[in-house]
Amino acid sequence: MADEQTGAVTIAAIAAAAGVSVPTVSRVLNGRSDVAPQTRERVEQLLRDHGYQRRGGRARARLIDLVFNDLDSPWALEIIRGVEDAAHAAGAGTVVTAIHRRASATRGWLDNLSARASDGAILVTSELDPELDAELRKLQVPAVVVDPAGVPGLDVPTIGATNWAGGLSATEHLTGLGHRRIAFVAGTPDLWASRARLAGYRAGLEAAGRPFDADLVVDGDFGYASGARAADRLLALPDPPTAVFAANDQMALGVYEGVRRRGMRVPEDVSVVGFDDLPEARWSSPPLTTVHQPLTEMGVLAARTVLRMVDGETIESPRLELATRLVVRDSTTPSRLRPAEPVSS
Amino acid sequence: MADEQTGAVTIAAIAAAAGVSVPTVSRVLNGRSDVAPQTRERVEQLLRDHGYQRRGGRARARLIDLVFNDLDSPWALEIIRGVEDAAHAAGAGTVVTAIHRRASATRGWLDNLSARASDGAILVTSELDPELDAELRKLQVPAVVVDPAGVPGLDVPTIGATNWAGGLSATEHLTGLGHRRIAFVAGTPDLWASRARLAGYRAGLEAAGRPFDADLVVDGDFGYASGARAADRLLALPDPPTAVFAANDQMALGVYEGVRRRGMRVPEDVSVVGFDDLPEARWSSPPLTTVHQPLTEMGVLAARTVLRMVDGETIESPRLELATRLVVRDSTTPSRLRPAEPVSS
Repeated sequence: MADEQTGAVTIAAIAAAAGVSVPTVSRVLNGRSDVAPQTRERVEQLLRDHGYQRRGGRARARLIDLVFNDLDSPWALEIIRGVEDAAHAAGAGTVVTAIHRRASATRGWLDNLSARASDGAILVTSELDPELDAELRKLQVPAVVVDPAGVPGLDVPTIGATNWAGGLSATEHLTGLGHRRIAFVAGTPDLWASRARLAGYRAGLEAAGRPFDADLVVDGDFGYASGARAADRLLALPDPPTAVFAANDQMALGVYEGVRRRGMRVPEDVSVVGFDDLPEARWSSPPLTTVHQPLTEMGVLAARTVLRMVDGETIESPRLELATRLVVRDSTTPSRLRPAEPVSS
Repeated sequence: MADEQTGAVTIAAIAAAAGVSVPTVSRVLNGRSDVAPQTRERVEQLLRDHGYQRRGGRARARLIDLVFNDLDSPWALEIIRGVEDAAHAAGAGTVVTAIHRRASATRGWLDNLSARASDGAILVTSELDPELDAELRKLQVPAVVVDPAGVPGLDVPTIGATNWAGGLSATEHLTGLGHRRIAFVAGTPDLWASRARLAGYRAGLEAAGRPFDADLVVDGDFGYASGARAADRLLALPDPPTAVFAANDQMALGVYEGVRRRGMRVPEDVSVVGFDDLPEARWSSPPLTTVHQPLTEMGVLAARTVLRMVDGETIESPRLELATRLVVRDSTTPSRLRPAEPVSS
C-alpha cells in the first residue's frame, strides 16, 4: 500500500487496492457525487484503513508544487501570486521550489513531492524532459507547464502567452510613431518565447514596409546588463536606431542605462519598449511602454487546470496562450524625423 | 488521536498518547539520538499505528508555511528565495500564502495549515496578534516573525534588520558628500522599520551638526507614487534639498520620476538614496545607491530557526537583527555647494 521509497500511502495505491482509477479516488476525496455508491464506500474504507484522512476531514487540504528554475526575477513573483490566489481559494497549499537546473535538486524535489504526497505540479519555463515526465507519471502527479521553454508536446497541458502577437504590437507601435530605424534586443535564443518575439518584430517591420536590418538585432540574455551592452553597441552604429524594442523589461531598463551613459534621454533621443509589464516597468523613470504578459492570470489558470486534473477531469484544450497587450507609458514618443525624410546619423 | 476540526493526526496528539513532549516526538521523527530507547520505541509504535509515516519514511518531508500580507513587491521574492533555499536543503517544502490582512483568509490559512499538518510557520511583517498567536500555540505549530511590524514581544522569535543603523549610514553618506539640505521620504508610519529609519536619519543629521528641518520630511507609504509626489513637493520648496533619502527603493525610484518630470537629473541635480537593495536598485538608471537589507539571509535564518523549533530545540536569541550596509552606486554625487557656502534656492 505504501510507496517503497517513502512509506507514503498514495492515491495510486488506494486506487489499485480498490480496483478503480486514480481520478475515481480523487472524486471520492473531493466529495463529488459522480461516483457509484458501492465504489465510494469501498474507496472510503480503504482510505480510512490506511490513514489517508490525515490531511483533512471535511475539506482535504491539497498541495500543489510550483517549480521554478530560479527565483531570481520579479517575474517569478507574478506567477506565484496567481497560483497562490487560485490554490488558496480552492483550499490548496502552494509549495514553491527552485531547482536551479541541477539534476540533484530535481531529484530532491521529486523525493519531497512524493514524501509529502503532493497532488499536482506546475513547472515554469521548463522543457519537462522525458525523464521528469516519466517520474511524475510514475508518481501519478498531474503536471502543467507555464511558459514552455520549447515547442510543447501534446501530452502535458501548457499555458503560455501570445509572444508573437506581442512582438508584433510593440513593433507596430513604434512604426506608427514614425520610427524608421527600430532595433531589437533579443532574449535567450533557445527559448521559444524569445524566438516568437523576434518573429513578431520581423512581422511588424514587414507590415510597415520597413526592411529587416541584421545590424539592428543584438543578442541579449534577458538580463539588465545585456540590455545596457546592446544599447551601447546600437548607439555607436553610424546610423543608430531612434527606437529600441527589448524582448523583456529588464533588458529595456538596461537600454535606459546605456542611453543615459551616452548623455542621451529616453524618450527624447531614443524610444524604448519592453516586454512582460513587471512592476519595474511602472516604477521606472520614465515609466516604460511595454507588452503586458498576463503572468498572474497564467498562474491562476495553471492552478485551476492542475486542480481539475487532480480531480480526474479531462482538460479539453491542453495548449493555451493568453493574450498579451501593449501598455503605452512615457518611454515612447513620435520620431522627430518625418517618415519621408532620410535618416541621418 | 485526530484533530477534531480536520481529522488530522498531529504530533501533539501522538505526544499526548505517548506521555511525552512535542519536541520529543519531533526528535524521534527526525531520527535524532537524544531520546531514550524506550521512549523512541513507544513513540514510533504510536506513529506507525496512526499512519504518521505517510509523509516520509527514511526522510520525512516537512512543511513550512511562509505567510505574507501581500505578494505585491519584489521584496517578498527575496524572502521566499531565502526560505526556500534553506528549507529545500533540509528536505522541507515551503508553502507560500498571502492573507491580504483579511480575517477570513487568515482563518482559511489556519484551517489549511492544520489540515496539511504543517510543521512550522514564518510570518512576514506581521503583528502576530494575540489571537493568531493563541491559534498557532493550540495547533502546536512553532512560529517565527520576519521583519516584525511592531516592537516584538518576547514570546516569538523575530528576525529583522538594523533599520536604525541603515538610516544613519545613508544619511552620513550624504552629509559626507557635502550635502546640507537632505530630505527624507518616510515609510508607512505605523511600521517599526519606518520609525527606526527616520530615527537613523535624524541621528545622521545630528552627527554632522545639521539641524533637523521638518519641511524636509515628507510622509510616504512605501509605494512608487508616494515617492514621486514627495519629490514634487520637495523640489517646489523655496530652498529645495540637493539630496533625498527615501525609506525604501520603490519610493526612491518614484523620486527619480519626480526629478525627471521637473527636467532635472539624478544625480547631477539631486542625489538619491534608497533602502532595501531590491533587484530594482541595480536595474534603475542610474543604478541606485541604497542600504542593503539582507532579506534573503533573513529568510534563510527564519527557515533554519523554525526547523530547529520543530525539532524541539531551544532558541537562545529570539531577537535577531541582521546588519544592513550601504551600497554606493551612481545615484549620489558630491554636492556642488562647498560645505561652508550658504545654500541658495
